[in-house]
Amino acid sequence: MSSTALPSVDSRPFQHVVIVGVGLIGGSIAKALKSRGLVGQVTGLGRDRLRLTAAQQSGVIDRIATSISEVGDFSQAVVCTPVDRIVQDVESLRATARSDAWITDAGSVKGAICRAIQTPPDRPAVFIGSHPMAGSELGGWEHASESLFEGRVCAITPLGQPEKLISSVEHFWASLGMKTIRLAPDHHDRIVGLTSHLPHVAAAAVASLLTEEGWALAATGFHDTTRIAGGDPQLWTSILMGNREALAPQLRHLASVIDDFILALDANCPNKIEELLRRGQSARSAWQNGIKE
Amino acid sequence: MSSTALPSVDSRPFQHVVIVGVGLIGGSIAKALKSRGLVGQVTGLGRDRLRLTAAQQSGVIDRIATSISEVGDFSQAVVCTPVDRIVQDVESLRATARSDAWITDAGSVKGAICRAIQTPPDRPAVFIGSHPMAGSELGGWEHASESLFEGRVCAITPLGQPEKLISSVEHFWASLGMKTIRLAPDHHDRIVGLTSHLPHVAAAAVASLLTEEGWALAATGFHDTTRIAGGDPQLWTSILMGNREALAPQLRHLASVIDDFILALDANCPNKIEELLRRGQSARSAWQNGIKE
Repeated sequence: MSSTALPSVDSRPFQHVVIVGVGLIGGSIAKALKSRGLVGQVTGLGRDRLRLTAAQQSGVIDRIATSISEVGDFSQAVVCTPVDRIVQDVESLRATARSDAWITDAGSVKGAICRAIQTPPDRPAVFIGSHPMAGSELGGWEHASESLFEGRVCAITPLGQPEKLISSVEHFWASLGMKTIRLAPDHHDRIVGLTSHLPHVAAAAVASLLTEEGWALAATGFHDTTRIAGGDPQLWTSILMGNREALAPQLRHLASVIDDFILALDANCPNKIEELLRRGQSARSAWQNGIKE
Repeated sequence: MSSTALPSVDSRPFQHVVIVGVGLIGGSIAKALKSRGLVGQVTGLGRDRLRLTAAQQSGVIDRIATSISEVGDFSQAVVCTPVDRIVQDVESLRATARSDAWITDAGSVKGAICRAIQTPPDRPAVFIGSHPMAGSELGGWEHASESLFEGRVCAITPLGQPEKLISSVEHFWASLGMKTIRLAPDHHDRIVGLTSHLPHVAAAAVASLLTEEGWALAATGFHDTTRIAGGDPQLWTSILMGNREALAPQLRHLASVIDDFILALDANCPNKIEELLRRGQSARSAWQNGIKE
């Protein structure tokens, strides 16, 4: 897209977007906003001035800030820090936000965060939780991509905020090419426990059993099953801890299914093994067929 | 490769190869042999004359047979039937094999098969077990590919046979583009338990927990972690049952690692979660770096 094809700065839908935490997700949001001509200016707010300056020099963001006081007036803010820092980062932004600004986040867990950031009774609501379902096991803005979100799903998790605010946040993610879906925060957490956090634990557990003698015989099946185990352990610790109340019982369920396999092997019972395998195959193909429709 | 570039039929290294079970693996062996100009003639031996005729008409195989008596003299045979049928199929072929012919298989488990097919004292050895490590969750010769084996590893599992025979089987797989590795059959089974069978159980268990409300939020992580759970349950039942003695204790180990995650979540202990995740990430990156060297 050439710069002459972009709408004039004043007519762009988002005037001054703040990205808190310019990593893979934050960097990809900035790049998508800019490449689509949707934004007047993007400020990256973070702790590490050197990293931010490098991101600015690469054109990922326009301005940098290492404290709220350097940010100035903003129209939208997306907090892309690890889930255990989101609440404090939102609270800091909210203290300086003008009343027509809004704030969202990109955290993988929503219940604890959205409950902690309830609107004070005397203030207008400015925060709605979001979870853009896109990523990579490669972190850092160097791996950011303007097309990371295209065609992917973004969960929006309101908790009693006004419809106008919810719609604004939905519009933001939709303008990056995402399909949005509204879910209560705790419902979201139970679902991503099964679709994301439990698979992450399973992948890490399977990967951790590999020793050097297995290297030559580990092939594409092992590669794919354990791919997400390559993700940053620190980042994923805060995600798993943030969803531990939903995740622990789900992992007990997973362990019980693995126990069923062990019992069937010990009892030399192929019919039971086939039934267990068929359940997995059916659930997966129902999903694959369901999302194609 | 144009047909004029192929060596003359008499100078091709393999005169008459019999493929028992013309599915994804058998069909891919046939296509690879033919496209590389390595074989005089390929006979497909199976139960279903209609399926075999269709494979012949598609050019995957040259001749078809539905019983050993129709096969005639052969120089090499590769048994690609499910692991619970391999022993009987090898025994049938051996009864009619000339003394300079050899037989191998493509089964994913080796201990029980190789022990069952010990050479009678009064006969020359004609069988060596093989496990070409390549495949797909899509079965059938329609998905066969002449390049399925290129760059992949084939385990050869001798059990006291003469070096000349072992080398011949290694040469066969190497001529299809594979890297061969020699392993004792039981050692092979313990390794593929960890690199293939245990990941399959984990993928099936994770997939089986998905319900319709999770469809919209299941993304690439879920997709890759559960990909192999799409494999044929009947085929995989015979593989898992064939390796049940190695696999059951390995699955107990997997369940204990998942229990460690549950305990750490229940105890609200992020350091332990991070340590468990780091173990998975390290084991996986050691493998990735190790195989690149």
